[in-house]
Amino acid sequence: MVTSIILLKVKRKKVNEVAEQLADIPGVSEVYSVTGKYDLVVMIRVKTNDDLAELVTGNLVNVDGVKKTDTMLSFKAFSKHDLDSMFSM
Amino acid sequence: MVTSIILLKVKRKKVNEVAEQLADIPGVSEVYSVTGKYDLVVMIRVKTNDDLAELVTGNLVNVDGVKKTDTMLSFKAFSKHDLDSMFSM
Amino acid sequence: MVTSIILLKVKRKKVNEVAEQLADIPGVSEVYSVTGKYDLVVMIRVKTNDDLAELVTGNLVNVDGVKKTDTMLSFKAFSKHDLDSMFSM
Amino acid sequence: MVTSIILLKVKRKKVNEVAEQLADIPGVSEVYSVTGKYDLVVMIRVKTNDDLAELVTGNLVNVDGVKKTDTMLSFKAFSKHDLDSMFSM
Amino acid sequence: MVTSIILLKVKRKKVNEVAEQLADIPGVSEVYSVTGKYDLVVMIRVKTNDDLAELVTGNLVNVDGVKKTDTMLSFKAFSKHDLDSMFSM
Amino acid sequence: MVTSIILLKVKRKKVNEVAEQLADIPGVSEVYSVTGKYDLVVMIRVKTNDDLAELVTGNLVNVDGVKKTDTMLSFKAFSKHDLDSMFSM
Amino acid sequence: MVTSIILLKVKRKKVNEVAEQLADIPGVSEVYSVTGKYDLVVMIRVKTNDDLAELVTGNLVNVDGVKKTDTMLSFKAFSKHDLDSMFSM
Amino acid sequence: MVTSIILLKVKRKKVNEVAEQLADIPGVSEVYSVTGKYDLVVMIRVKTNDDLAELVTGNLVNVDGVKKTDTMLSFKAFSKHDLDSMFSM
Amino acid sequence: MVTSIILLKVKRKKVNEVAEQLADIPGVSEVYSVTGKYDLVVMIRVKTNDDLAELVTGNLVNVDGVKKTDTMLSFKAFSKHDLDSMFSM
Amino acid sequence: MVTSIILLKVKRKKVNEVAEQLADIPGVSEVYSVTGKYDLVVMIRVKTNDDLAELVTGNLVNVDGVKKTDTMLSFKAFSKHDLDSMFSM
Repeated sequence: MVTSIILLKVKRKKVNEVAEQLADIPGVSEVYSVTGKYDLVVMIRVKTNDDLAELVTGNLVNVDGVKKTDTMLSFKAFSKHDLDSMFSM
Repeated sequence: MVTSIILLKVKRKKVNEVAEQLADIPGVSEVYSVTGKYDLVVMIRVKTNDDLAELVTGNLVNVDGVKKTDTMLSFKAFSKHDLDSMFSM
Repeated sequence: MVTSIILLKVKRKKVNEVAEQLADIPGVSEVYSVTGKYDLVVMIRVKTNDDLAELVTGNLVNVDGVKKTDTMLSFKAFSKHDLDSMFSM
Repeated sequence: MVTSIILLKVKRKKVNEVAEQLADIPGVSEVYSVTGKYDLVVMIRVKTNDDLAELVTGNLVNVDGVKKTDTMLSFKAFSKHDLDSMFSM
Repeated sequence: MVTSIILLKVKRKKVNEVAEQLADIPGVSEVYSVTGKYDLVVMIRVKTNDDLAELVTGNLVNVDGVKKTDTMLSFKAFSKHDLDSMFSM
Repeated sequence: MVTSIILLKVKRKKVNEVAEQLADIPGVSEVYSVTGKYDLVVMIRVKTNDDLAELVTGNLVNVDGVKKTDTMLSFKAFSKHDLDSMFSM
Repeated sequence: MVTSIILLKVKRKKVNEVAEQLADIPGVSEVYSVTGKYDLVVMIRVKTNDDLAELVTGNLVNVDGVKKTDTMLSFKAFSKHDLDSMFSM
Repeated sequence: MVTSIILLKVKRKKVNEVAEQLADIPGVSEVYSVTGKYDLVVMIRVKTNDDLAELVTGNLVNVDGVKKTDTMLSFKAFSKHDLDSMFSM
Repeated sequence: MVTSIILLKVKRKKVNEVAEQLADIPGVSEVYSVTGKYDLVVMIRVKTNDDLAELVTGNLVNVDGVKKTDTMLSFKAFSKHDLDSMFSM
Repeated sequence: MVTSIILLKVKRKKVNEVAEQLADIPGVSEVYSVTGKYDLVVMIRVKTNDDLAELVTGNLVNVDGVKKTDTMLSFKAFSKHDLDSMFSM
């Protein structure tokens, strides 16, 4: 499983709307509206880097209201949970 | 469920070691080592703000090797998954 | 009581006007116009995280003139005063 | 009433300890441990600028564990509450 | 005497014009156009915090061409000169 | 008259001590301890650039406790006051 | 061989389009779309500084959609590969 | 082929030494010493994300003299060259 | 001789054009287009601070395409060359 | 002629000493101590990129007291002066 975490700054009145649109995109596992200098944190869980590339530079860019993104690839996940089976990969 | 996402900068040679210690702390759901200017992203899922406070200002500070933290509280989660039941809250 | 402190940057000519509007919102306890790189500091005191989420991502975003916000959740309050009773929670 | 709000960065293992020490200083009304890039937010309510100067450059500097401070003077408070009488000035 | 020092960034072609307007405002003692990342430094010398508040959030905001301000309150002045009498407070 | 304004960050427990030392240096007109991200603002009024250079890179650097300085040269002063005669240049 | 590496921020919906246009410019060896705070990394391999100057300040500026660039000249390359012959210089 | 580009800040006297050590690590394709705020740019070309994770969080951290790293994963490469065969993947 | 060095950020398509206009202004000795986060570096060599003030806040501001400037006054020049005579002051 | 401009931050008490040492290095044309957030600006004029590389990553790093450097390569010089002959290249 390829996991990526994206920090987003969003236009002020669009936080919830953008969150809902993002959460609908295949491969987007969770979207959190958060305190602090970012507005949303997006968890992406896909099979391959190409899926990730397509999602980030193809899909995600078409969601209006996003001002700034900082995309992080996860090297490795550490968890008590079996994330692969939980997120049925 | 109270969800918090913490961005961490960690001493260079301690990234994996710190990740493992954090993942063992009750309430820490997942820890990801990541690309970019941060080193780790920690997902916390607990019942109450007090649990979160105890974890962040009580527990987490005792893990050596952590240089800088930026803690975000999640206002709301948007997901196709039933996160509460998945993370059995 | 859930306490949150928000640092705001506001359009130059709207500082007092925005402060007044914010102070009227239920759950907003105090608003201070301040020196320094921020323009306003907002103290929010509500019952639950959901109230906080609704206030921040629902109500507050509709106040015009706000350029940038940095929202902080208070883990714990330390005071000689009995803040809960003072702010009648 | 002269109100000042101070944002503090504190040594990681000293957050609660520093908060308690600060809350004991006369003139310090409330101290909040918070999420985000700061660790503590201190509310100061005193009678005169000189009291504020003495507290900030005389008293507060002697509390060990404080790494960085950003002090803001409040020009004006906007609130439903009668803050002066609440904080018995 | 309440002294405040304000660092300003101003629209490029308006530096001298804004400086002149500011210098005319009662309570503004001196305005300096400067090298470095700021464009102007304003010295304010007034009697009370309320005068300062009125000047900064009432008067100063109406001067066009100002892009960004960082206002500092002076706790204490150290000088060989008798500033109070020099600036006839 | 050559005027320069210097913004200083100082070691926390040395603010007043450093201010006093600086105020004693010939050419230093005023020193203000201030709110905000800086600790001191120094006003220098001398006759020539060489005096300024000697003061900044010769004298000032020998005052212990100064962490960071940002020196600004004033191009031009705008004031109701006759600053030259007031500061007897 | 003169090698230069340029970090680019690009308008959100234009990442792939800009990458393709840049990759067509003579002297541009590779363009990578990347995670993190930049959007593209451009590898330039040319014969002389003048070629580099012409490419950066002449050619590259005409590609629409580029918001910000940070150009680095490589002093020296360290590699197991014979880069000069690989990139046929 | 999984390509990653890492920006490094290195201790001043160790730039060339660190560059040579990094260039020897399997999977490190090229290392460039550069102008600007970074000191080195490292090109990594490996087969899988796990190889990348092992290299970055396992190998690279053991090279002394590295102060700060910012790791970017390449989503996609755009080039006239057949990079895969050139770098014999 | 009064020497000043100005770092400029310029609109992307105007770098060479702005450089040429600046180089024509009396008192501007050299203009360099550069790599890195700035676009141009301007060397100013004039007789007095007033000449410098007039050039920077009077002349230079009228050159279109300049986005941001950071002006530095040189305290002292260290060189094997006799800069005064070279630049015929 | 290859021209490079380097911005330096230097240990406070070493500004003049470092400037003198740098000015002695072959290829260093001028060193200026300056106002603002940098301490020194170094003008380098050499024949080839290799000379520049040797000077920056070989020579310059051995001068003690330098805290931070930001090196810029000049693409092109614009000047009324014939810089090549003036600096006898």
